[in-house]
Amino acid sequence: MIAEIIAAGSEMLTPHRQDTNSLYLTSELNDFGVAVAFKTIVGDNLQHLTGAASIALSRADIVVFSGGLGPTEDDLTREAAAFALGIPLRRDPNLLTELAARFAKRGIAMTSNNAKQADVLAGAEVLPNPNGSAAGQFLHTAVGGAGRIVVLLPGPPRELKPLFAAEVRHRLAAILPPRSIAKRLLRMALIPESQVDARTAPIYQQYPDIETTILAANGEIQLHFQTAASTLAEAQARVDELAEKIELEMDEAVFSSHGESLEEVVLLMLGLRSLTLAAAESCTGGLLAQRLTAIPGSSRYFLGGAVVYSDALKTAFADVPPDVIATSGPVSAPVARALADGIRARTGASIAISITGIAGPGPGTGPDAAKPIGLVYIALADDLGTQVKELHIMGDRDRIRWWATQHALELIRKSLL
Amino acid sequence: MIAEIIAAGSEMLTPHRQDTNSLYLTSELNDFGVAVAFKTIVGDNLQHLTGAASIALSRADIVVFSGGLGPTEDDLTREAAAFALGIPLRRDPNLLTELAARFAKRGIAMTSNNAKQADVLAGAEVLPNPNGSAAGQFLHTAVGGAGRIVVLLPGPPRELKPLFAAEVRHRLAAILPPRSIAKRLLRMALIPESQVDARTAPIYQQYPDIETTILAANGEIQLHFQTAASTLAEAQARVDELAEKIELEMDEAVFSSHGESLEEVVLLMLGLRSLTLAAAESCTGGLLAQRLTAIPGSSRYFLGGAVVYSDALKTAFADVPPDVIATSGPVSAPVARALADGIRARTGASIAISITGIAGPGPGTGPDAAKPIGLVYIALADDLGTQVKELHIMGDRDRIRWWATQHALELIRKSLL
Repeated sequence: MIAEIIAAGSEMLTPHRQDTNSLYLTSELNDFGVAVAFKTIVGDNLQHLTGAASIALSRADIVVFSGGLGPTEDDLTREAAAFALGIPLRRDPNLLTELAARFAKRGIAMTSNNAKQADVLAGAEVLPNPNGSAAGQFLHTAVGGAGRIVVLLPGPPRELKPLFAAEVRHRLAAILPPRSIAKRLLRMALIPESQVDARTAPIYQQYPDIETTILAANGEIQLHFQTAASTLAEAQARVDELAEKIELEMDEAVFSSHGESLEEVVLLMLGLRSLTLAAAESCTGGLLAQRLTAIPGSSRYFLGGAVVYSDALKTAFADVPPDVIATSGPVSAPVARALADGIRARTGASIAISITGIAGPGPGTGPDAAKPIGLVYIALADDLGTQVKELHIMGDRDRIRWWATQHALELIRKSLL
Repeated sequence: MIAEIIAAGSEMLTPHRQDTNSLYLTSELNDFGVAVAFKTIVGDNLQHLTGAASIALSRADIVVFSGGLGPTEDDLTREAAAFALGIPLRRDPNLLTELAARFAKRGIAMTSNNAKQADVLAGAEVLPNPNGSAAGQFLHTAVGGAGRIVVLLPGPPRELKPLFAAEVRHRLAAILPPRSIAKRLLRMALIPESQVDARTAPIYQQYPDIETTILAANGEIQLHFQTAASTLAEAQARVDELAEKIELEMDEAVFSSHGESLEEVVLLMLGLRSLTLAAAESCTGGLLAQRLTAIPGSSRYFLGGAVVYSDALKTAFADVPPDVIATSGPVSAPVARALADGIRARTGASIAISITGIAGPGPGTGPDAAKPIGLVYIALADDLGTQVKELHIMGDRDRIRWWATQHALELIRKSLL
């Protein structure tokens, strides 16, 4: 059984906007064992949209439309689906009443164009949309003797997602064969994808019933496992068994065994040991602090720190001796060490981390002028002492800064193991 | 003249990965006056891909494929395009030699499957790919009597983009009618889209020859103008005329008249006046500093500052009197003011900015327990004194933090006007 997702909207055919609903819809459909075989993005053009709908009905069992359900002349999904299915639209009196009530409640006159939002494919169920005026529609029918499920959903993600969850899931469950799907997500940082694959493939290949996906991005590797079985417990036991074997193989490289982010894991470990953290950042300029404070509740374990972009602030906020900066340069192991020690003393944090480096595109200054772009020092100070790591990070400014914070978070995590 | 973009690759039919090449390709095609009417995403399945190619050739003048040009069994774009066009593939001896040389240079044996990368659509030109082993292809042909341009491009963006720029642009220019396109981008912050549209529509509607697009996201409004004329100078004069009228109407709300980001504009203005900036951040936890330091060269004007997430650090790094925190609560106008004044004194910066607020999802503590989520105070201290703004920002933690930094950057910008 395969599905096609049609995203209707001319704005998604510009260089500025992209369909994103299809990622959510794909995940939902996959949970029913339905693969998405095609995604089509088409503009607000009745001929184009009707053509795309006809093609989708000819090649997919389930066709999900997003967008084009509003009141304007550009909203053509209802009409296109009706043409393609060869069925009429009926104006739903209840929906019309609800629309009028909605406008009355907001004290706005309902203009005549809004009435088309009450047009429903003959035989389709109306799916109420509590977050907008465009209702969804669900039709289980036959096209040329083959069963077809047609779903019409509003385009805005904050309308589409709750509507799918509340109205579409249980309707699909009533039609499609029952499936119990279990998933696991292991996450690793700063390890090459090829190495992960070489070490894990001999293991996951013994589980052909489990779909294994390896994704690599931004200094992180994700291993997604998914399987279906007759009961959820059975499916879960199966993915758990594989996940545990992979964890055993990859050992400490796995920072997350249930999908938590690296920031979340670091904060969780600090919490378990009742420790606090502070940071002194030069080239990352607050990116590390920003990543940590993006996590709700981080204030309990992350005290804060200093963004010591200028040399003077390295001294003012972390007591780095000016002569160390002058001699070794701000991007050096001694300065990284002094920054970590200084910020720890100033904040009273259990653990202090510092980052200093050359993020580019321009070179460093003074004693750093000849040092390569991508050279980064990170230091970690705790009760055991202070350790410094020298890194050489490839790429542009954004990548160097991001990877520097990945390394810093991994260094903190490993110190907490 | 319309185009269809076909992105081939099963990974783009999962919940994890999305086609992004089409945004770039759309921008490039638009520059030739070609609208993208359809985008199709299809998996590594010969039947599906051939079907999608046939449909595209029936409804679009230009069909651009991305992906599926590698050496594996899953790379099927060449075969699918050939089937759909009803033409044979020829194995290109030069390409085969180059492939062999590529492997020899890297000291790797070329396995037999790689030879398919030398298969070229009959009549197509080979487009060399300096960044990968998969060459592109360009074919100008006729399908059912209608002219068709078919372009095959490798999937990785770092291969596709330079290949398009070097090899496809000039070939399209040789076939398509000449066009000179000029663009302008005005950017505004923290102003409702409806207000921008109400004030600017009467102006831009007088320029029906200019395509005006209004985009709103993340506390920013973008006004994109684009037009074509027989010469570039004529097109540029036309969009500049409109842009100037809009700037006159929106006045100081326009922070960028040529597309620069808010961070870039703030740093530019600091530079023009030889001023320096420092920041003390509580609820934004380094996000403001991170945004500023993401800009190359920011170190000349942004000194750094403190992430004063804990109350103790507000005192330690910005000399906020503990009794002010105890009395008013950390999220208060007096604390914002003291933070800005304190960080300015400590850093010696010309301008200091502070942010303190309740980002949620949990409530504040102590005197802040009853204050609403989304309450944010920002203060700006400069030679003229210290001003404090109280904000009430709607949304979740990420949105509150982002908008707080937008407000802070706008406050700095307006202080520099």
